[in-house]
Amino acid sequence: MTLTDDDRRFLDLAIEQAQIGWDEGGVPIGSVLVRDGEVLAVGRNRRFQMDSAIRHGETDCIENAGRLPARVYRESVLYTTLSPCYMCAGTAVMYEIPRIVIGENRNFQASEDWLRSFGKEIVVADDPGCRALMEKMLAERPELWAEDIGEEA
Amino acid sequence: MTLTDDDRRFLDLAIEQAQIGWDEGGVPIGSVLVRDGEVLAVGRNRRFQMDSAIRHGETDCIENAGRLPARVYRESVLYTTLSPCYMCAGTAVMYEIPRIVIGENRNFQASEDWLRSFGKEIVVADDPGCRALMEKMLAERPELWAEDIGEEA
Repeated sequence: MTLTDDDRRFLDLAIEQAQIGWDEGGVPIGSVLVRDGEVLAVGRNRRFQMDSAIRHGETDCIENAGRLPARVYRESVLYTTLSPCYMCAGTAVMYEIPRIVIGENRNFQASEDWLRSFGKEIVVADDPGCRALMEKMLAERPELWAEDIGEEA
Repeated sequence: MTLTDDDRRFLDLAIEQAQIGWDEGGVPIGSVLVRDGEVLAVGRNRRFQMDSAIRHGETDCIENAGRLPARVYRESVLYTTLSPCYMCAGTAVMYEIPRIVIGENRNFQASEDWLRSFGKEIVVADDPGCRALMEKMLAERPELWAEDIGEEA
């Protein structure tokens, strides 16, 4: 799917976050929340870094954005380097974020049809950089990845 | 629906957390994660207390439980004083928590059918104490409640 120039720029920012997460020893998934071309927050999976069970890329980003009124989420776009798990998808549903741009969904995909059922616009970039990060993750840190998505290692 | 003695005990613990949250100035929703009759963690909504967008009762509880292997969640019960929003429901789906005991769903209900579609056992206590806490919330802190579930105040 074709990205706009803005989409490309914000997805690259999410990839930068994912790379930081990998370099920290964590799960390389990054996220950015944007409204009207303005970055509200960036975030990255911090399971390893914060010993967290709920800081996925998207939830960390939304947490970093702070307390926002409902209307802000409803005018925002959520960028994520990997297709969201149900926790993160559920967060986007609860806050009614209308558009989600996904770096890739070959290495993980669970919630996209469900998100579409709420009328959300789902854009999948199938980005080689996002895929490469997750392929490295699956090859080199498979147990951390299994833990991160609630799967048996 | 009839609760077991254990259910009653753990729901009371969740109510205690909700009351603490109310007394702190926050949203009175509490949660407990239990495996084999053992409390793994308690939690409460801490939007107000931590300026958090993702610390609902259930997610706070799961965060407090720390990093757990997948099999622990799959043998656990999640108690919550109020029917879960999609963020919290999605977290239970992602971690494959098989049973959820809900204090009440008259003041909020979104995800129960969806949770059942994954084969989860959903028990609704319709507990007067849980209802009273949420009725006080809706009457006295309606704007905080709207913010908490991504609704326009």
